[in-house]
Amino acid sequence: MIIGRILGTVVSTQKDERLQGKKLLIVKPINLDGSDQSGYVVAVDTVGAGFHEKVIVVGGSSARLAEGNKDCPVDSAIIGVIDTIDVIQPQ
Amino acid sequence: MIIGRILGTVVSTQKDERLQGKKLLIVKPINLDGSDQSGYVVAVDTVGAGFHEKVIVVGGSSARLAEGNKDCPVDSAIIGVIDTIDVIQPQ
Amino acid sequence: MIIGRILGTVVSTQKDERLQGKKLLIVKPINLDGSDQSGYVVAVDTVGAGFHEKVIVVGGSSARLAEGNKDCPVDSAIIGVIDTIDVIQPQ
Amino acid sequence: MIIGRILGTVVSTQKDERLQGKKLLIVKPINLDGSDQSGYVVAVDTVGAGFHEKVIVVGGSSARLAEGNKDCPVDSAIIGVIDTIDVIQPQ
Amino acid sequence: MIIGRILGTVVSTQKDERLQGKKLLIVKPINLDGSDQSGYVVAVDTVGAGFHEKVIVVGGSSARLAEGNKDCPVDSAIIGVIDTIDVIQPQ
Repeated sequence: MIIGRILGTVVSTQKDERLQGKKLLIVKPINLDGSDQSGYVVAVDTVGAGFHEKVIVVGGSSARLAEGNKDCPVDSAIIGVIDTIDVIQPQ
Repeated sequence: MIIGRILGTVVSTQKDERLQGKKLLIVKPINLDGSDQSGYVVAVDTVGAGFHEKVIVVGGSSARLAEGNKDCPVDSAIIGVIDTIDVIQPQ
Repeated sequence: MIIGRILGTVVSTQKDERLQGKKLLIVKPINLDGSDQSGYVVAVDTVGAGFHEKVIVVGGSSARLAEGNKDCPVDSAIIGVIDTIDVIQPQ
Repeated sequence: MIIGRILGTVVSTQKDERLQGKKLLIVKPINLDGSDQSGYVVAVDTVGAGFHEKVIVVGGSSARLAEGNKDCPVDSAIIGVIDTIDVIQPQ
Repeated sequence: MIIGRILGTVVSTQKDERLQGKKLLIVKPINLDGSDQSGYVVAVDTVGAGFHEKVIVVGGSSARLAEGNKDCPVDSAIIGVIDTIDVIQPQ
């Protein structure tokens, strides 16, 4: 899994019917020091995450195992809001 | 999922029979500011997307969960046409 | 999926028995203008592609959905020979 | 699989219920000479690994095959603590 | 699949029980001219490959389809020892 922060939303009307009602969020992957990485991913929110919260994102087929994503055509899901990141020995 | 815009089509006659009738589109991944990323992906259109529209693309085994792709040998599918991308705090 | 051209073959005698009789081809990923990308992939040919033909390659678990690859330990398969690539607005 | 060393932990209260009780560790991928690679991955510990130990990490759907991860929305798991890495001919 | 050569072994005592008896080899991905690529992968040997032999490596869920890997938490497996690589038109 990766860590990211929520940056925004994607709105789509003309879409696969199994995406109906799903919240598609733009997540920015971040480094352990909190700085942004390049790129972004569009993930289904399954835990009610808020903007700029740090979240855990799962990718690949396991995104379909997140709550409510069974048999959905999604490859990325937010599965946790992060309280703390404890790095014993930072880089 | 990633965001891309449709750039063209791929035509193939000699192909796996489960690809018959499928529209194979060339999708250019884009950044959140709308600029192009490098590279491209060939994806099956499952939502009737038009040229240069911004779309949501799912990759991996989940592409087979998109409408009509069950048991097809595809690893990328267009699953939504994007209305708006709302970035609360752009990079 | 990606687009590549066939560059050669890999011959292996001591191999997984489910690879018996499969044609393992070396595919060079190419850009939309036909130039080569770096790297290569070894893919199972499932459509009878010829040398230097442009082909469509599927990766991941979906390679096992290509004709004849059911339950085979393969992660890449050639699923189509390309007739034309139509790019509406090239980069 | 990749080799990494354990760098820290991620704590999350608001999360997918199938993550309850799972230990989420931050793993730093390392080179064969023991130096750090860039990036990190968040993996479920399934073998009781300790901080700064070198571990084997499995990714993708196979992370769900690790002990206790069945049907969990995880894409990375620690499946072994490394005793020794024997490189016959280092780079 | 990729082509690599076997560089060494990883020894682990404290590990997932489904890894018992499996040989974990360090594989260095190589270019078509035989030179090394950067990085490495830890793969399960399923064909009895020897040190410095060139091998075919399958990744992802398909690694579980290799002989003896059913339901094992592995994402990379050696599925063939290479006799020859024939590149018709080298880069």
